[in-house]
Amino acid sequence: MYLYNSWYVAGWDYEFSRTLRSRTLLEQAIVFYRKQDNTLVALEDACVHRKLPLSLGRLVGDRVQCGYHGMEFGCSGACEKIPGQPIIQAKAKVKSYPVVERWGWVWVWMGDADLADPELIMDVPHYDDEDWGINRGPSMHIECHYQIYTDNLLDPAHVNYVHLSTLAGKENSGADAPVQVDIDGSVITASRWTLDGLPAPLFTQFHDYQGGVDRLQSYQLRLPSLAVIDMVCADANTGAQSGGGENRLQLNSYNFITPETADTCRYYWFQVRNFKPHDEAVSAQLTAGFKSAFAEDAVILKAVHEGMKHSNTPHINLAIDAASSNARLIMKQLIAAERQVNH
Amino acid sequence: MYLYNSWYVAGWDYEFSRTLRSRTLLEQAIVFYRKQDNTLVALEDACVHRKLPLSLGRLVGDRVQCGYHGMEFGCSGACEKIPGQPIIQAKAKVKSYPVVERWGWVWVWMGDADLADPELIMDVPHYDDEDWGINRGPSMHIECHYQIYTDNLLDPAHVNYVHLSTLAGKENSGADAPVQVDIDGSVITASRWTLDGLPAPLFTQFHDYQGGVDRLQSYQLRLPSLAVIDMVCADANTGAQSGGGENRLQLNSYNFITPETADTCRYYWFQVRNFKPHDEAVSAQLTAGFKSAFAEDAVILKAVHEGMKHSNTPHINLAIDAASSNARLIMKQLIAAERQVNH
Amino acid sequence: MYLYNSWYVAGWDYEFSRTLRSRTLLEQAIVFYRKQDNTLVALEDACVHRKLPLSLGRLVGDRVQCGYHGMEFGCSGACEKIPGQPIIQAKAKVKSYPVVERWGWVWVWMGDADLADPELIMDVPHYDDEDWGINRGPSMHIECHYQIYTDNLLDPAHVNYVHLSTLAGKENSGADAPVQVDIDGSVITASRWTLDGLPAPLFTQFHDYQGGVDRLQSYQLRLPSLAVIDMVCADANTGAQSGGGENRLQLNSYNFITPETADTCRYYWFQVRNFKPHDEAVSAQLTAGFKSAFAEDAVILKAVHEGMKHSNTPHINLAIDAASSNARLIMKQLIAAERQVNH
Repeated sequence: MYLYNSWYVAGWDYEFSRTLRSRTLLEQAIVFYRKQDNTLVALEDACVHRKLPLSLGRLVGDRVQCGYHGMEFGCSGACEKIPGQPIIQAKAKVKSYPVVERWGWVWVWMGDADLADPELIMDVPHYDDEDWGINRGPSMHIECHYQIYTDNLLDPAHVNYVHLSTLAGKENSGADAPVQVDIDGSVITASRWTLDGLPAPLFTQFHDYQGGVDRLQSYQLRLPSLAVIDMVCADANTGAQSGGGENRLQLNSYNFITPETADTCRYYWFQVRNFKPHDEAVSAQLTAGFKSAFAEDAVILKAVHEGMKHSNTPHINLAIDAASSNARLIMKQLIAAERQVNH
Repeated sequence: MYLYNSWYVAGWDYEFSRTLRSRTLLEQAIVFYRKQDNTLVALEDACVHRKLPLSLGRLVGDRVQCGYHGMEFGCSGACEKIPGQPIIQAKAKVKSYPVVERWGWVWVWMGDADLADPELIMDVPHYDDEDWGINRGPSMHIECHYQIYTDNLLDPAHVNYVHLSTLAGKENSGADAPVQVDIDGSVITASRWTLDGLPAPLFTQFHDYQGGVDRLQSYQLRLPSLAVIDMVCADANTGAQSGGGENRLQLNSYNFITPETADTCRYYWFQVRNFKPHDEAVSAQLTAGFKSAFAEDAVILKAVHEGMKHSNTPHINLAIDAASSNARLIMKQLIAAERQVNH
Repeated sequence: MYLYNSWYVAGWDYEFSRTLRSRTLLEQAIVFYRKQDNTLVALEDACVHRKLPLSLGRLVGDRVQCGYHGMEFGCSGACEKIPGQPIIQAKAKVKSYPVVERWGWVWVWMGDADLADPELIMDVPHYDDEDWGINRGPSMHIECHYQIYTDNLLDPAHVNYVHLSTLAGKENSGADAPVQVDIDGSVITASRWTLDGLPAPLFTQFHDYQGGVDRLQSYQLRLPSLAVIDMVCADANTGAQSGGGENRLQLNSYNFITPETADTCRYYWFQVRNFKPHDEAVSAQLTAGFKSAFAEDAVILKAVHEGMKHSNTPHINLAIDAASSNARLIMKQLIAAERQVNH
């Protein structure tokens, strides 16, 4: 069960070229390539004849040629050549997907092409800001259902147990602070301020805080699967909550979870920050740190996925599940509404 | 289909410590650990919240803390702490299993805890006998259904073909000797005396028999899955059958098969002997010899398991199956009776 | 769904000896061995008692002895000895398969033994011809349904795309030439002459053609799964089509696809040729060349098998599928007729 009328990240822009590349999104195999003018094409990765993945064929100009009998498909998905056969059947076409590049990512529209509006793609306010730096993650393959992962991105409470050595504060500081949940249409936000506490290791590596700090952890899920996480750290009682604060460090993390199969997904992320914007070493250090932390998530979430899938004893919800429970309920409604329109 | 109201071996006592250890018995994942006073705890290995195996968490005093959100469970299985949530739901508990240590093994009661009587655990008469020695096996993982293995432990006839080079007599001596089957409640015994034959390699390494020997092979299965195997070898016609005999060597083998899944089990074993009781080299030699022999069983029984599971042609029983057929019939009755009580 | 009343290739004659060898044909595991007089035996590879593969046992004279309890089976499949049991049940027998050696291959009859006539095995006219050479392939394991492979052996059109660097002509010469399909009972032939074109790399390595060539590609499928492929190359307009031709090189390829499971098959092949008959280096060069080409098929056909199996969008047929579509239709009729007789 997926929401189809939405943009999904298929990969980093540098991953796609004149080499045919196959990726699976929402259980659909798609072949990607760049045309001679560098624009992107995304086609169903299965020849209409004997279902050989087109990604096993080759490019002939801007067409992809099947590696079995040489059928050639254009960017619209229509077959434009069948060797040895003068007439091309109308049915000889594969699905073509709307595809655009933005913020370094390649986005594919998985539903009704008429609804594919690039303006629906997220905005990243500080992306080209001279005073902000950026660091980018890899293309991560994760062994869990994408909603197990989006639950986690709405869940500040796991940080103190899963990321004890990386993102958490010392001595589980803040583990008991209350989480505030806000819902605005298909956008769910879970956030909490921890006041006058210990700073997280993430920030202490960039500033030597002398006393307590005020910290924001804000987890915003924009359905189906974009999470924007804001982290702020500043000297306690200096106005961090109203946007200021002494020694204020701020990091906005953009995280996209693309469903692959019912048991796997791909995870793409980058961060922008308000400090040391042009320092490549800092960017590398941040990417390395988050990679370590997200590797911790990958282990736990795979085990949660398998536990939820195979357990035959009941499970319960906790107070901390308010945000993710709401998100799943709204997802169910969005999917049901989309199916109603389609049938 | 398992018999639940029974003690099962979960492992060797030295395998369990302050490190969380997960084992699967009767298709149930269980986490084991020792409390600070060294006593054992056995809990369902799945947090009641999102089914993360508790074995991926950590010990906090005598409680196990979940590695996802820090819920803490006590030895009774009840949740005793939920970070950030003052009220703990009554449903927030995992199953707790009765567990005891005896004869070097850790035993778990898989059924109704009220019926878990440690007195039901087997007796080992010569365990602490000064005149008897002991050798212990490893913890073996076997790829067959546990009843394929218990069949084998009631079956002296396989020895001459599976263990040609290890336990069998030379030139298949004894392969045609009759097997006597006795049934006493849930205890089935298949035994045979081979009179004035050749000794098995097992015993010739400890005594140089000059002429023929009288040999006992006695295979006793105590349902569901404990096998006690007695082997005796003495000079022929010197009274071995009545408990005496010149140059009498005797070895009692205790073997426990713990069902893991429908396709796998674990095998635990040790032997006590009436010769060279304090000779560590002899103990090591015996363990090495049985490991070799049981590795031969593992290959054959895995192939039997797969053959019986996938074959689509009929199979037949032989005269040698009398003991194991009876044992399976009684097991079926015991399981049916247990289910009747529970429903 | 298989055709059982037919000879299938089980392997090369040199693969079978006094060592027990197991092969699966049409989803049936069969154990092969040579008797002391060197003749072949083929028995169901599962003891009638507990289904241990007999191939895990050992030979005792001309009988195979089960490795579990020593039951011995003769060449007819009947059990001839049960250790410790005087009476042998009538049901104690395994299936025995008719088996013959011809053309270097071992052939097994998978259906009603009364119909197993060795005269039904293919003829190879130039096998012992002094003026013709021979080269033999290996025993190849292929990951696709056998009919995906037999389709391919009736399909000259794939050559220009799958075998671009090996069997195809330069610049896809001949890709548009028409294919002629002939049907004669259970024999389907797809052939085409490419006139005055470029020679294929296969032949240019043996003769330096100065101008255009006339080429024959003839693909004949004899159901269920024997393909005889004739390739001819001669100077253009010198009479190649009527059996002559200047610098005529001819190669007859014998290809047998043995179904193993629904997802796998085995591929056996050899070629005879009208040039350099006694040149071992040429034989080795040809075998190496075809191995490379058939490895290209193996990659494509595995992907086609998986694409056809898992795709949930429709597929279409092309004009080039005429021969294989007819072959599949006739196979369906042959299988249905065989089932009608058996029920």
